[in-house]
Amino acid sequence: MYKLEKLESGVCAAQGFYADGISAGLKPNGALDMAFIYAEVPCEIAATFTTNKMAAAPIKHFRAKGEFQTNFVLINSKNANAMTGEAGVNDIDEILAHLPGEAQNPVMSSTGVIGVRLPKEKLIDGLKKFDLTQKNPHNAAQAIMTTDSFGKEIAFRVTLDDGSSFNIGAMAKGAGMINPAMATMLCFITTDADVDGVTMQKILDRVVVTTFNAASVDGDTSTNDTVMLLSNQKSAAFDAKAFEDVLHQIMEHLAKQMVKDGEGATKLVTYRVTGAKDDAEAEVVAKALSNSLLVKTALYGEDPNWGRIASTVGASGVTCSEESLTISFEDVCVYEKGKLYFDAAMEAKAAEVMQRDEFTISCDLGVGEGNFQAFGCDLGYEYVKINADYRT
Amino acid sequence: MYKLEKLESGVCAAQGFYADGISAGLKPNGALDMAFIYAEVPCEIAATFTTNKMAAAPIKHFRAKGEFQTNFVLINSKNANAMTGEAGVNDIDEILAHLPGEAQNPVMSSTGVIGVRLPKEKLIDGLKKFDLTQKNPHNAAQAIMTTDSFGKEIAFRVTLDDGSSFNIGAMAKGAGMINPAMATMLCFITTDADVDGVTMQKILDRVVVTTFNAASVDGDTSTNDTVMLLSNQKSAAFDAKAFEDVLHQIMEHLAKQMVKDGEGATKLVTYRVTGAKDDAEAEVVAKALSNSLLVKTALYGEDPNWGRIASTVGASGVTCSEESLTISFEDVCVYEKGKLYFDAAMEAKAAEVMQRDEFTISCDLGVGEGNFQAFGCDLGYEYVKINADYRT
Repeated sequence: MYKLEKLESGVCAAQGFYADGISAGLKPNGALDMAFIYAEVPCEIAATFTTNKMAAAPIKHFRAKGEFQTNFVLINSKNANAMTGEAGVNDIDEILAHLPGEAQNPVMSSTGVIGVRLPKEKLIDGLKKFDLTQKNPHNAAQAIMTTDSFGKEIAFRVTLDDGSSFNIGAMAKGAGMINPAMATMLCFITTDADVDGVTMQKILDRVVVTTFNAASVDGDTSTNDTVMLLSNQKSAAFDAKAFEDVLHQIMEHLAKQMVKDGEGATKLVTYRVTGAKDDAEAEVVAKALSNSLLVKTALYGEDPNWGRIASTVGASGVTCSEESLTISFEDVCVYEKGKLYFDAAMEAKAAEVMQRDEFTISCDLGVGEGNFQAFGCDLGYEYVKINADYRT
Repeated sequence: MYKLEKLESGVCAAQGFYADGISAGLKPNGALDMAFIYAEVPCEIAATFTTNKMAAAPIKHFRAKGEFQTNFVLINSKNANAMTGEAGVNDIDEILAHLPGEAQNPVMSSTGVIGVRLPKEKLIDGLKKFDLTQKNPHNAAQAIMTTDSFGKEIAFRVTLDDGSSFNIGAMAKGAGMINPAMATMLCFITTDADVDGVTMQKILDRVVVTTFNAASVDGDTSTNDTVMLLSNQKSAAFDAKAFEDVLHQIMEHLAKQMVKDGEGATKLVTYRVTGAKDDAEAEVVAKALSNSLLVKTALYGEDPNWGRIASTVGASGVTCSEESLTISFEDVCVYEKGKLYFDAAMEAKAAEVMQRDEFTISCDLGVGEGNFQAFGCDLGYEYVKINADYRT
């Protein structure tokens, strides 16, 4: 096993990583809008990107490099550099050409409005404000935000049984829901663990499925979604099991933070689906529930309207029937395999659960062994009340 | 060809059909909540129902009858009789047993809250208020509403070239969007055309695809969705082509009325997708656009944010690329095959289009001959403003 120690230094928690955020004038009033992550030595890289066929220029730019190491990531908010074609990719090279010589194979990541060329001059001027000796991870986390209401960071020191240790830290942006910037999620994770890119990629591919890919945004998939994991291997320590465990903790934490930050969201709900034909069908149901406007409005109204859950399961088209389905709010079972025993007393119990900020809704489909867990939030604002009050 | 004459008599437009709506006390303040459609003679039937695996009791009850004719349809709002199992189906038989002898093979249709048994006594008492000699189609249309803000009816007399004529009329309910009652849509169409059930079913199956199934509700599929077409063959007239044309007009009109009636909706938008690999992929894109919260919020903000359209197309996973896609708001082309020529002047033109109550957004995917057209609306209310203003 291993020992975990929480650190406050975000993407600078790992030895030899520097970061900062500055204002390049993309956001009004001098708000931070451009950030860098810099390492003294080239880093091993693992990354996952959006499945959107209109992948943004920075993603095309990254993919075009093939296999490589980098020690510099430039990130801007307010402009996604998406749907900008070849010109958008060339803009990136022009901008990165102005970086100091310390930057090797620099890459870029962007989030914001789609279909507008980057304001190159502003960004190039902004680069002059960078000081690569700075360790201001919180500024960097602020600079990459769009509609986020708070920065999202987490970091750990991991001490293995043999006493050796490595550090891993991350920052992310993404407002969970109804995000006008296509709910872009960006996540940057740095570590000094002694791990190569191929190993990291395998681990990242596994972990992203049950963390960021399990978080409900608005059902749209951004042109810019990016998770980037960098290791400068400064520490001699590494343990695959410990690394994957901790990476999962980090990414699940950040995924939940994004959902919590959904505009107007007041609740974080975990949808636990079990008894499905297979894991794939469980995933379909869990995601259908976390994306259903009708479920979201019921959550907001704290209305244990389990009928919407049942109907959403049925609408998802997976193997399940009225007679096989069981629905619970935390430990309160509201519907079990055709038994209609939902009464005022049970409604009160279920309503109590729904008043919590965080809770779990479980659906057992009763047809197999498949399971999946998704994270969702409610749908806030005035219009919801109209719907949430329907039952009363 | 044929001549069309608009009638105001809804489901009573066809000879020999009677309808009315009464209050059975399901809705508060004596609002109409139970309706009937009655014909003197048994009618040929065509029907399409929800694909939801948790199909409601009235749908199970109908399907269990196999092939049959009926002259009586009982409809209630406020309670969907869904997730009520075998008991829910038996409740229907108990209620229908109290109908007068004129009712042959009566069927029932329900809409409202899921997972609650029907208040049998109230409904049975309500039946006593029915007068089968009444022709009050507007009352019937009112009685089947849930969150609808207006009744939805349409009827025509169709005169064929040989001078013979038949009548066809319909009523429907369904509030387009974010409908707390699972966006249930019910539609009842009556005709005296000389057409048999098998022929009607073939025609109905074709027409529903491009009308009700092309209308965006909230992405959820109700447990109760029903379209029922009844013919008492009182008229000797029928022409398959004319019948299908007119049925399409009727169902498209009602589908658009539902979308228009979406809670908080202020715009009716037609999404015309062309140049797709095939019709199926065109349908995927058209429906993705009409259901995208990001597109809906942009519509509400009258913001020609074509980037959201492009990203939604890309996220839908169909065959399309940045270089093959073309996007137009009515006749204003805002993006063409990688050409990024969206400027202030064009934005002004596109914004003018978006200020209209009804307009078309066209996407040519540029990869084939497939096409599909879907109907959607914007997403209203305060929370939308926050998103719609993002660009400014």
